[in-house]
Amino acid sequence: MRPVRVMKVFVTRRIPPEGSAALSRAADCEVEQWDSDEPIPREDLEQGVAGAHGLLCLLSDRIDKKLLDAAGANLKVISTMSVGVDHLALDEIKKRGIRVGYTPGVLTDATAELAVSLLLTTCRRLPEAIEEVKNGGWTSWKPLWMCGHGLSQSTVGIVGLGRIGQAIARRLKPFGVQRFLYTGRQPRPQEAAEFQAEFVSAPELAAASDFVVVACSLTLATRGLCNKHFFQCMKKTAVFINISRRTVSAPEHVPARAGPGLAPSSTLTLLRK
Amino acid sequence: MRPVRVMKVFVTRRIPPEGSAALSRAADCEVEQWDSDEPIPREDLEQGVAGAHGLLCLLSDRIDKKLLDAAGANLKVISTMSVGVDHLALDEIKKRGIRVGYTPGVLTDATAELAVSLLLTTCRRLPEAIEEVKNGGWTSWKPLWMCGHGLSQSTVGIVGLGRIGQAIARRLKPFGVQRFLYTGRQPRPQEAAEFQAEFVSAPELAAASDFVVVACSLTLATRGLCNKHFFQCMKKTAVFINISRRTVSAPEHVPARAGPGLAPSSTLTLLRK
Repeated sequence: MRPVRVMKVFVTRRIPPEGSAALSRAADCEVEQWDSDEPIPREDLEQGVAGAHGLLCLLSDRIDKKLLDAAGANLKVISTMSVGVDHLALDEIKKRGIRVGYTPGVLTDATAELAVSLLLTTCRRLPEAIEEVKNGGWTSWKPLWMCGHGLSQSTVGIVGLGRIGQAIARRLKPFGVQRFLYTGRQPRPQEAAEFQAEFVSAPELAAASDFVVVACSLTLATRGLCNKHFFQCMKKTAVFINISRRTVSAPEHVPARAGPGLAPSSTLTLLRK
Repeated sequence: MRPVRVMKVFVTRRIPPEGSAALSRAADCEVEQWDSDEPIPREDLEQGVAGAHGLLCLLSDRIDKKLLDAAGANLKVISTMSVGVDHLALDEIKKRGIRVGYTPGVLTDATAELAVSLLLTTCRRLPEAIEEVKNGGWTSWKPLWMCGHGLSQSTVGIVGLGRIGQAIARRLKPFGVQRFLYTGRQPRPQEAAEFQAEFVSAPELAAASDFVVVACSLTLATRGLCNKHFFQCMKKTAVFINISRRTVSAPEHVPARAGPGLAPSSTLTLLRK
C-alpha cells in the first residue's frame, strides 16, 4: 500500500455546511478554514494559503501574483464561490497551470429573486411604509398615500440579458409588464424572444424605462456604463436597481472622483491594471 | 326647457383625480368632498351626507342604519371605493331601494403586487438588511448572513384562491415554487389548474407551507380562521402574509381577548351583530 499523500485545502471563509461536509469526507484532504463570516485579512490569507494544494476563496479575496507566490508550487486548484472571476489574476494563474473552479448558475435563482425583491420593495415604498408603522405615521388607509409605482403596463429595461437578466424578466413578466427592453454587447434574439424584449442602446433604454435593472457582468465595456449621462436620460420617476458590481454605475475614472458609494470595489483592481 | 335638477354627491375622502374629474364633468351634479387623506369623523360624515343623492365612500366609513337615516330619503346610490362591502349594512340599504356600487377587479393587480412585495421583502429580510446598512452593520458580503428563505422549491399555501389569490399565484409561479396549496369554501379545480394547486384543509395548508398568503374575503366562515391553532400548525420558519382584513387572523371572540394588532377593525361591526 502506498502512503496516502495528504492535500492541504485552505478555505477563506465560513461556507455553507454542505460544502464543508464534502471537503471533510475527502480522506486525503486536510482542511484549514478561516472561521469567520468576515473576509480574511490579507496577511492571514497569505499565511494560510502557504503550501496549500487547493484554495477555496470568495469574491473578496484578491488572488494576484503576490498571493500565488505566497501559496507556492503546491497550488493546483482554486475554487471561487462566485460567478464573477474579476478578483482572480487569470493570466498569472494560467501561466502556473492552476485550474480554476467557479459557480455559475448556482445563485441565478437567488440573485434574480433578490433583484425582484429590491425592485418591488423600492417601487412600492415598503421601507418608508415600515418606517411610518414604527413612528406612528400609519393610521388609516389613505387612497392616495404611498401608492408608489406598479409594474402593470410599465416598461422594464434590463442591462445585460444573461442568465440572471433572463431569470429576472421571467419573474417580472406576470406582473403585467408591457414592454421589455435590453442592452448589452449584442442582440440576443433567441433569449429575448421569451419576453419579446427589444434590443436598444443604453441611452434609449434609460430614456424609455420605468424600471432599470442592471444585471451585466463587470467588464471594460460595462464599467461606468450607468454614468451621469445615463442617469440624466432616465425618467424622473424611474426606479434603478443595480445588482452588478457597483462600478458598473460609477464614472469612468473612479479613483479621481470617487465619493461614498462610488468607490471602486477591491474586486476591480485587476481590471484597472 | 325643464329646470335642471341638481343632485348632491358627497365624497368622504380625497380620491384619485380621475374620479373627481368624472364627477365634476356631470353638469347636474353638485359635489361636496371631505378634503383630507384621513377618514372623515363620524359626526362630519353624518352632517355631510344629509340630503345627498349619492355617496362615494371608503372602507373606513361605516354605512349603517343611523347613517342612512342621517342621509335621508334623497339617497339613491352608494359607491364604495373597495372590493369589500363589509362596512355597508346591505340589508338596510336594500330595504330602502338604494343601489350599491363597488370596485372589484380594479385593485387586483396592485393588491397581488403588494402581497408579493411583502412576501419577498419578508423572506429575503430586506427591512433588516436596510437597517444594517443604516447602522453600519453591513460590511463585506457574508455567504451565510441574512440569506433568508427563497421561493425556489418551496410550498406556498394560499387561503382564498379568488381573483387576488390567483393573481398572487401567477406572479409567484416563475420563482420556482414547487407546490401550491389552497384552502377555501370549496375546491376550485378550474382556477387551480393553472398552478396545479391542491385543495387542502386550513390546518393541512398551515402545516405544509413555507409561505402562507391570506387572500380571502372576510366572512363569518373566515373570521378567526388563522387562529392560535393555525399558527401552531405552521412550520417554525414559515412566512405569513395577510392581505385580508386583520380579523381573519384574530381569535374568534375578538372583543374579550383583543390585544394590540388583534383589535377588531371598525369594518367588522356589521358582521358581529
